[in-house]
Amino acid sequence: MKKPDFERFFNEMSQLLDGEQISRNETVLQNHSHDESYHTPKRPEAVLFPKTTEEVQQIVRSAIRFSIPLIPFGMGTSLEGHVVPQEPSVTIDFSLMNRILEVRERDFFVKVQPGVTRLQLNKELKKYGLFFPVDPGADATLGGMAATNASGTLSVRYGVMRDQVQDLEIVLPDASVIHTGNLAAKSSSGYHLTGLFVGSEGTLGLITELCLKVYGIPEQIIAGRAVFPDVEHAVDAVTDVIRAGIPIARIELLDALSIRQVNRYMNTEFPESATLFFEFHGNEAGLKQDVQFTNEIFIDHHCTKFEFEKDNAGKNKLWEARHNIVFAYGKGFPGKKLMITDVCVPISSLTKAVKHARDLVEQFQLSAGIVGHVGDGNFHVLIMLDRDDPVQLKKAEEVNEQIVNFALTCGGTSTGEHGVGIGKRKYQRQEHGHALTIMERIKELLDPNHLFNPNKVFETDR
Amino acid sequence: MKKPDFERFFNEMSQLLDGEQISRNETVLQNHSHDESYHTPKRPEAVLFPKTTEEVQQIVRSAIRFSIPLIPFGMGTSLEGHVVPQEPSVTIDFSLMNRILEVRERDFFVKVQPGVTRLQLNKELKKYGLFFPVDPGADATLGGMAATNASGTLSVRYGVMRDQVQDLEIVLPDASVIHTGNLAAKSSSGYHLTGLFVGSEGTLGLITELCLKVYGIPEQIIAGRAVFPDVEHAVDAVTDVIRAGIPIARIELLDALSIRQVNRYMNTEFPESATLFFEFHGNEAGLKQDVQFTNEIFIDHHCTKFEFEKDNAGKNKLWEARHNIVFAYGKGFPGKKLMITDVCVPISSLTKAVKHARDLVEQFQLSAGIVGHVGDGNFHVLIMLDRDDPVQLKKAEEVNEQIVNFALTCGGTSTGEHGVGIGKRKYQRQEHGHALTIMERIKELLDPNHLFNPNKVFETDR
Repeated sequence: MKKPDFERFFNEMSQLLDGEQISRNETVLQNHSHDESYHTPKRPEAVLFPKTTEEVQQIVRSAIRFSIPLIPFGMGTSLEGHVVPQEPSVTIDFSLMNRILEVRERDFFVKVQPGVTRLQLNKELKKYGLFFPVDPGADATLGGMAATNASGTLSVRYGVMRDQVQDLEIVLPDASVIHTGNLAAKSSSGYHLTGLFVGSEGTLGLITELCLKVYGIPEQIIAGRAVFPDVEHAVDAVTDVIRAGIPIARIELLDALSIRQVNRYMNTEFPESATLFFEFHGNEAGLKQDVQFTNEIFIDHHCTKFEFEKDNAGKNKLWEARHNIVFAYGKGFPGKKLMITDVCVPISSLTKAVKHARDLVEQFQLSAGIVGHVGDGNFHVLIMLDRDDPVQLKKAEEVNEQIVNFALTCGGTSTGEHGVGIGKRKYQRQEHGHALTIMERIKELLDPNHLFNPNKVFETDR
Repeated sequence: MKKPDFERFFNEMSQLLDGEQISRNETVLQNHSHDESYHTPKRPEAVLFPKTTEEVQQIVRSAIRFSIPLIPFGMGTSLEGHVVPQEPSVTIDFSLMNRILEVRERDFFVKVQPGVTRLQLNKELKKYGLFFPVDPGADATLGGMAATNASGTLSVRYGVMRDQVQDLEIVLPDASVIHTGNLAAKSSSGYHLTGLFVGSEGTLGLITELCLKVYGIPEQIIAGRAVFPDVEHAVDAVTDVIRAGIPIARIELLDALSIRQVNRYMNTEFPESATLFFEFHGNEAGLKQDVQFTNEIFIDHHCTKFEFEKDNAGKNKLWEARHNIVFAYGKGFPGKKLMITDVCVPISSLTKAVKHARDLVEQFQLSAGIVGHVGDGNFHVLIMLDRDDPVQLKKAEEVNEQIVNFALTCGGTSTGEHGVGIGKRKYQRQEHGHALTIMERIKELLDPNHLFNPNKVFETDR
């Protein structure tokens, strides 16, 4: 590979972009050196703030000429080091491309730029009686969420990010632009490039526009909490609800330690025991029947408390508590950094997978809680660790690895929603086998110079 | 490209396969020369019937050695010439790989071989209280349905084929085998190869096993018909139902001519006017509310009759009528062949797209009816034509082209569910622009010898 020539690249950039669109300011570089996880920060050489697709194309053209690795950046809320440079690189921050371009309310879709965040979008959609259902904890950008195929608490009902993307505008590593999809509800025309680019973590192309599905706000929403004696009883209850075909919209597990963090961070007084947060969407009559059936199943699994949030304030507080869990742990363990597992297993393996993980955490004496989108079979172990303590880091990595191995043995995946980044690269061969070689060949086909988010997903030696 | 050496290929095949697994019988070749459409038949040189993935791999190895084009074949029910050889080829018929391998009822998925048909699967699933929701008219194989990303009447509620596929076992053009997915409900691990292979029409790989999502049979199903004065009123009613967020499970349009074919073919006595066939899935209380709301919307759009099917026999008859529409037209226009359009448009453009199509059919004086999965914005014009009459064929192709152009202008697609095959190749550049070049490069990457269903999707000159 050619050696990058940053000086000449920056010269070209200062011709192309306005002064405030290029930063080498220490604070800015610092802010773009890390994500929300334990991965070791590293500063980029500069941060660029393009305003248009054409500017992105011109950045890529110059990057090709001067062999500059490029890293796309949304809000920096990823959890596997996706935005952390692995070699001298330039970061492209999409925060100036943050316009909602079109709300097609009759067609149930919106066109947005990649820097729009999910809360910004939902604020706008509310005016139309619509909402966007993918809700990772953080207020991430939609470009970043598409890049990692993010999901969240509502995915059990509405699907993950890949299910919502109708079309992407992509700047490819050769600086050409494509649209991957169209505006029809379904299509059998040509290869499904949309699915390929969603979840490719910036390694195949830069997302410069998205067309996303949106949904009508349901006639009625019922939310509440159910408390169980332990995690196993709660998980068993969830698998039975899913098996009964009840179309639950959200069903989230928090273990006792997680509830404690939430109570401290949010000033709530939830009972500090394994708890399911749940929500139903539908019409009034239908929901009454669903809720009653769910209550019966929960009682069968020794549920000790089944409470509803009566008003919107209560509902909002409930989901804010769930979404703030990462920050609650951060506050609860000051100075420590977060390593978070993200396996997803078939629902029939969920109880034993969660039990296996909890036993490991106890065995290795780590500070760690368990939360999860258990309706999808996806759960997280949040391990709080001192990044500078090699013994603790090694222990945490051992636990992470054993949890992944267990999930893969069940036919599951190493990452249900956070993506590979740098943290899950080492499991890719084990997980995908020969299919990984096909992925590597597609990467090589589209990005032969390895300039697009290099060393993410695969270890691509330059 | 090397010239195919069929003689030496057949020699190797007779070493590898049992006698009954290789056929050059005239009737068998004839049966594998066509699909259900107007495309000109052409016989393959032979038909092979593998029983295992290993046999498929060995067939591919020999095919590489002797430059033999291979065409995968399910039931031959496709509608764009997908299985019709475009050059001397060998067909691989998957009918001996037709076992249901595993029903994981707690996990809501099944593992099947590619030759299993959708009715065969649903018969087995019924024992578990489960069903598979993708229902193209014909009793197609699941391998074929995945290859074309098929959908059907239930897609408005449950999604298309691509939404159901968890994992595929694929034999690649270099004879290696990959698994594209896993058994978890969601995954952000690596590139989404499953989405890439679904809908690739046998041009990138041969499907030898599928893992598919299945669903619990709903507590209650309500089905019925609503009659409207004309197609436009019916379509407007559908767009309003969708806009109101009513979770309808099926909503199908049949115009007056289509109802007439159904009545003749099925001995039914449905009023011969534009009609919506509909179905709701859910719990008893919720459905009552949905049905009442739908009825009110229909009345606003001058619905003249709103009738329910009271028993299972009536419901089955209703959907059998809809599914048999292609055969009903075949019987109603003896000796004629079917050209069927398949555009899908954003729901807000549906009324004007249907009206545009109907006006064209009248202007060109063709025998043609309109049916459609209108809840998805997908509709079909069924043009009955004499394949040997060049004037009629030219007229039909002109109408087809204008319908596609109109759909593309609305941001729609040339094919919502039938796939490209040979019939929609000519629209691919117009529809995908530069993205088509990326698709061609992926094809070239995986199948450099152009042996896998050549000349389908793209015009790949050998």
